[in-house]
Amino acid sequence: TGHDVSAKGSLGGRIFAPYYVYKGKAAFSVDPVLPTFMKLDSGDLKVKRKGVILLTFAPAIGERKYDWAKKQHFALSPTEVGSLLTMGPRDSSEFFHDPAMLSSNAGQMRKSLSIKANADGFFISLNVANNILKTNERFVVPVTTAEFAVMKTACSFALPHLMGWDRLTNQLPRSSTDSSSSS
Amino acid sequence: TGHDVSAKGSLGGRIFAPYYVYKGKAAFSVDPVLPTFMKLDSGDLKVKRKGVILLTFAPAIGERKYDWAKKQHFALSPTEVGSLLTMGPRDSSEFFHDPAMLSSNAGQMRKSLSIKANADGFFISLNVANNILKTNERFVVPVTTAEFAVMKTACSFALPHLMGWDRLTNQLPRSSTDSSSSS
Amino acid sequence: TGHDVSAKGSLGGRIFAPYYVYKGKAAFSVDPVLPTFMKLDSGDLKVKRKGVILLTFAPAIGERKYDWAKKQHFALSPTEVGSLLTMGPRDSSEFFHDPAMLSSNAGQMRKSLSIKANADGFFISLNVANNILKTNERFVVPVTTAEFAVMKTACSFALPHLMGWDRLTNQLPRSSTDSSSSS
Amino acid sequence: TGHDVSAKGSLGGRIFAPYYVYKGKAAFSVDPVLPTFMKLDSGDLKVKRKGVILLTFAPAIGERKYDWAKKQHFALSPTEVGSLLTMGPRDSSEFFHDPAMLSSNAGQMRKSLSIKANADGFFISLNVANNILKTNERFVVPVTTAEFAVMKTACSFALPHLMGWDRLTNQLPRSSTDSSSSS
Repeated sequence: TGHDVSAKGSLGGRIFAPYYVYKGKAAFSVDPVLPTFMKLDSGDLKVKRKGVILLTFAPAIGERKYDWAKKQHFALSPTEVGSLLTMGPRDSSEFFHDPAMLSSNAGQMRKSLSIKANADGFFISLNVANNILKTNERFVVPVTTAEFAVMKTACSFALPHLMGWDRLTNQLPRSSTDSSSSS
Repeated sequence: TGHDVSAKGSLGGRIFAPYYVYKGKAAFSVDPVLPTFMKLDSGDLKVKRKGVILLTFAPAIGERKYDWAKKQHFALSPTEVGSLLTMGPRDSSEFFHDPAMLSSNAGQMRKSLSIKANADGFFISLNVANNILKTNERFVVPVTTAEFAVMKTACSFALPHLMGWDRLTNQLPRSSTDSSSSS
Repeated sequence: TGHDVSAKGSLGGRIFAPYYVYKGKAAFSVDPVLPTFMKLDSGDLKVKRKGVILLTFAPAIGERKYDWAKKQHFALSPTEVGSLLTMGPRDSSEFFHDPAMLSSNAGQMRKSLSIKANADGFFISLNVANNILKTNERFVVPVTTAEFAVMKTACSFALPHLMGWDRLTNQLPRSSTDSSSSS
Repeated sequence: TGHDVSAKGSLGGRIFAPYYVYKGKAAFSVDPVLPTFMKLDSGDLKVKRKGVILLTFAPAIGERKYDWAKKQHFALSPTEVGSLLTMGPRDSSEFFHDPAMLSSNAGQMRKSLSIKANADGFFISLNVANNILKTNERFVVPVTTAEFAVMKTACSFALPHLMGWDRLTNQLPRSSTDSSSSS
């Protein structure tokens, strides 16, 4: 009942604009990933996969040098972004992901992202445990109140885009003979 | 003094991007519906019918299965959205709609939407009473603080679009010889 | 050093999308008015006159009937909008305008807009005193918390547009050889 | 691995829309400066230099007259904008810049911007010390709560643009066969 849409952006490509936080033991970037759409036979578009805020962590290997080959990802869903947006200066949150959830490999790898208030802002930590390889990687990045404010403002801006709601603005006026509202 | 506008969006269709909240006894979706416009003889456009945030509820009929054929709608007006936006973590709201208001069928059906704070977020309940059929349907969905934050952020984003104010950005600079401001 | 820009919007006209508040003794509408631009010889554009939020009041002359021929305007500047945005549930504000300020007719007419907190929201009142005609018109409209939230959300959305800052998004990427930043 | 992009805006030029605050001893303007992009061989775009909020101060030389030839700049980075956005009515902030940082001229000039709460809003002060010329320039501008609210609302709007995140909205739907998300 539909086919995928592969139109490219009008600028001829994607835009890379991550927000980086570099600290002593690790760094991370914050990057919005847009939803994908499916074209219905009617010509209308439907969100196929929601967008996410992609966090990418890398360990430090020297002064302001980071090994991005050892990066680990954590993708915040719209609802997890909602959770981040409600955090006050003394709040903490923790999110758990299993990249293989619902598959036969479920439980082999566990990722957890923790955001914990401290005196000057927050500690943002990613833990990646692999039960097969018996490895456990951990990244801890202290984030200032100002950096967290940038993350919240940018994620609040991005949230409607992750949901596909920004498409509202890309349309010409609809016919007043369309009837799609009800009470 | 005008005719209706039926231009389609530049992408050749509408976009479906509801935000779903699925819980044990029922689910609901949150979906913005844009305003409709009327073209005046001057070539200018006027809002004919304001947009709404359309809530659609469905009962659960199994684990993570919902019967959307039994769906019921509740459409939040811009002012009701304003009410939702002001709600703090301990607040409650209730809205009443009569789909046949001002017609000869007024009073036959009554819908009420209730938003009540609980320990972890809110209960959002829709009640649809039909005095003719002597039926009363009720949907109750517990919503977490994070899910409510998504709803508030997305509705805050959508509100100017429901009002038609986002059209402000779709225009080229106006002539400085136009005189439409006053003090 | 420049000439005025009179390009029309891409939709072939302006959009009328006022937000109306109708109450027992009077009504008012809230309407954004975009800035005007001046084209410089360089081809660049400069804001010539800032945008405003135009409030228009009319007296009631029957049940839900209003006499718009007797309307009076009050145009909120961007800074007055900033003042409105900071208002909490117990705050009050008052703004004074002289439409003939700096001209030989200064002082003949005085307008004041007052926003006063009450138990359920705010009273918004416009007073227009004409010293020549010895007239004094007064409009008082009670506004609920929900209606005031719509005004604040919509004015917050509109503010960057009134200032001309939304033009930021209408441009293609600038050359990285342009040098306009400094520290 | 790429070349610079020099496409001009679709309106044929840049837009000048600073927000001015004029006071007794000095004035300043607030102006967003967009990021610059680099085109990669893949056709994708990457942020080359982040945008800033450019503050420009000038001393008063008479009643409502200012000497812009003696102007001094201070460019707030996205993270410094985040700091400004978190400021409550009783907070203070101070930022230090060295325009020649990391060059052989480091330390010759020091700029500091201070934002200090007072009874009616804030004092915003720029200090520019030149160790070679043995000069020290200082600009102090009292800013009302309403003016500061305009600055915060406008900077909050501008922040995603400074980071390049507004480019999210300028694209057509991406293919659902693109795989760029992960968990």
